[in-house]
Parts: sequence; structure tokens; C-alpha cells
Amino acid sequence: MGRLEEQFEFIREIDKEKFIGRQTYLSDGIRKENDAEHAWHMAIMTLLLSEYANEEINVLKTVTMLLIHDIVEIDAGDTYAYDEAAKATQEAREQKAADRIFGLLPEDQCRRMKSLWEEFEERKTPEARFARAMDNIQPVMLNAATDGKAWREHKVRLEQILKRNECTGAGSEKLWKYALKEFVEPNVEKGNIET
Amino acid sequence: MGRLEEQFEFIREIDKEKFIGRQTYLSDGIRKENDAEHAWHMAIMTLLLSEYANEEINVLKTVTMLLIHDIVEIDAGDTYAYDEAAKATQEAREQKAADRIFGLLPEDQCRRMKSLWEEFEERKTPEARFARAMDNIQPVMLNAATDGKAWREHKVRLEQILKRNECTGAGSEKLWKYALKEFVEPNVEKGNIET
Repeated sequence: MGRLEEQFEFIREIDKEKFIGRQTYLSDGIRKENDAEHAWHMAIMTLLLSEYANEEINVLKTVTMLLIHDIVEIDAGDTYAYDEAAKATQEAREQKAADRIFGLLPEDQCRRMKSLWEEFEERKTPEARFARAMDNIQPVMLNAATDGKAWREHKVRLEQILKRNECTGAGSEKLWKYALKEFVEPNVEKGNIET
Repeated sequence: MGRLEEQFEFIREIDKEKFIGRQTYLSDGIRKENDAEHAWHMAIMTLLLSEYANEEINVLKTVTMLLIHDIVEIDAGDTYAYDEAAKATQEAREQKAADRIFGLLPEDQCRRMKSLWEEFEERKTPEARFARAMDNIQPVMLNAATDGKAWREHKVRLEQILKRNECTGAGSEKLWKYALKEFVEPNVEKGNIET
């Protein structure tokens, strides 16, 4: 198979990410978000909010990371942030998925995309830390915009949100403080988040 | 309103792009694509296919253009490629939408995003030409992947596709030739595209 055929094979395959549902409600409070929509939203957030990163980041690298990091869920499914049982097997399922799906690409691009995906998972670079912050803040923002509907349905507790976000400030102290004050605290007060 | 408030105002507003439907069927042949999914898909295509641009392109600029160029459709709606009546009023509707929606951003970012949107519309730079090629090839690829379902439903003729794509080769000769041979011609032969 030629290089361009391999590239389009991958491009066609990732169309399936549009069918991977998440737990977050969109701003209409009715339909839930899918992975492709989530990635698009975070990519734009990064273009606009990179000025608040704790350390200087390469924006293209961060955007690329965010655009591709959920592709593994085509095989591995979305693992809800507060589902501890599913989280136990998440790593192995996602590694296998990365091998298969990125493996559709020509070798150089497979290596590049897989290494960006691994970098995101490891959170050891400024770009990965900022990308993680986006990945955590985007659903918190949408949950706040829908009067905490997903939090209420899942009876999410404040300590779960704080644990989930323990590395968010490592990407952007300023954005995490803002999210806590504007998105989380008002929903604790309204009882949408349990304490 | 502070800078960060304005940025999040815009970020919340663009959630609505996930509700703007397009005419293209996703690879399951059942659900149709929305603008956010379409933008996400083209952004990844650009990351992988920029090597085929006729002229060298700035990838971050091209990706940014593609991520934001349909935001105006939140107010102006999606104008189907082969709906001539809607296309007559498209420009005025979209300009008004750009003023309102990008106007939510802090002034520097409003200017930057609006100018990228205008650059995309004008097709005068290598990035805009390549972005246009992505915008044209992505639905052609999906239509081919669904056995021409959208083409059949709209009784699309080959000459309409060729007219719609008269500038696609200006972004990437190689990708347009490939799309013509692999996506369009087989569907002419099968009768999915009328001649």
C-alpha cells in the first residue's frame, strides 16, 4: 500500500471517534459530547489560552496532542473519570488500541503520533501538562454551563473533582484557579457537587 | 469584563458549533456530520497531509484556520455546497456572524481570528488554498466511504463536483488528483454521481 493510501486509511478509520460518547452534556443540557467534538473544543481553547501556561509551550505540538489523544478510545472506549473499575484496565486497553490505530499510518507518522500520545499520557513536558489542564477544565466548564447536570447525575463529590484535577494547576495555575472559583465553587454552593 | 472572562465567553459560545449539521454522512452511513467534527477531522488531515501542499505552508496557521472557519455558521447556518439560493446570501450572513461571535474575544484575539477567517474566505495565501482543499476533500472522502449516499440523495452531478473543486488543486495538485481517481471516478462508474 502506498503512503497516501495508508494516510487515508487512518483518516477514514478515525471517523469512528465521532461515535465515542463522553459523560459531559453539551451546552443544551440534552445531548452528550463525543470525543471528536471534545478534541476540537480543547484545540481552540489551547489557541486562545496558551498565554496562561505555567511554562512556555509549543502551541502546534499541544494542539496536535489534544487532537489525537482520544483516538485510542475508538477501540478502548471512553473511561469515565470517576469509574474506578474501568480505570484499572484502561492503560492496557489503550496501549493495544494505539498500536493498531496509529499502526495504520506510514511508519514515520505512526512513530510521531504515538510518541505524542505517550507524551500526553506521561505528563512530563510543559505541553503535556497544559494539554492535561485543557482536558480537565473543558468538561468542568461544560458541566458548570449545564447547571452541574452530569455532576448531579453521577453524584460527584468535591474531593473526586479535586483529585482528578490535582495536576491541572501544573499546566496552568491561573486557569485552574479560575475554574475552581468560577465553575466548581458555585456548584458546591448550589449542591450540584456533593461535599 | 476581564480578559479571561471574555475568552471563556467565546469558548462557551462556540459549543453551539456542535449542533450545526452538515449534509455529509459519517462512515456509518446513518448519522450526518456536524461542523465541530468536520473541523476536527480536517485539522488532523492537515497535520498528516501538509507534505502534499503545492507550496510550503505554516501548519499551525492552517490548522487554526480550519478549526475556526465554520464558527460563523452558529449564526449563519451551514450552506450546502449545491444550494445556489442559500449561497447568494451566504457572504452577508457570515460577515455579520463573524462580527458578533469573534467580537466576544479580547480585541487582539478577535482581530487575529477574524483575519484568519477572512484569509480562508479569500483563498489568496498558500495556507488558505490548502485549507480549502481539505474542506473540499474531506466530505468527498466521506461520501465515497458511504457508497455515495449523500451524492445519490441530492442527485449531485459530476460537473457540480468539478466546479466546487475547481480550486482544490491550487492547494494540493497531488491530493486533488488522488481524490478524483479514488473517490469521485469510482462513484461516477457506479452511478452514484450523475453525469
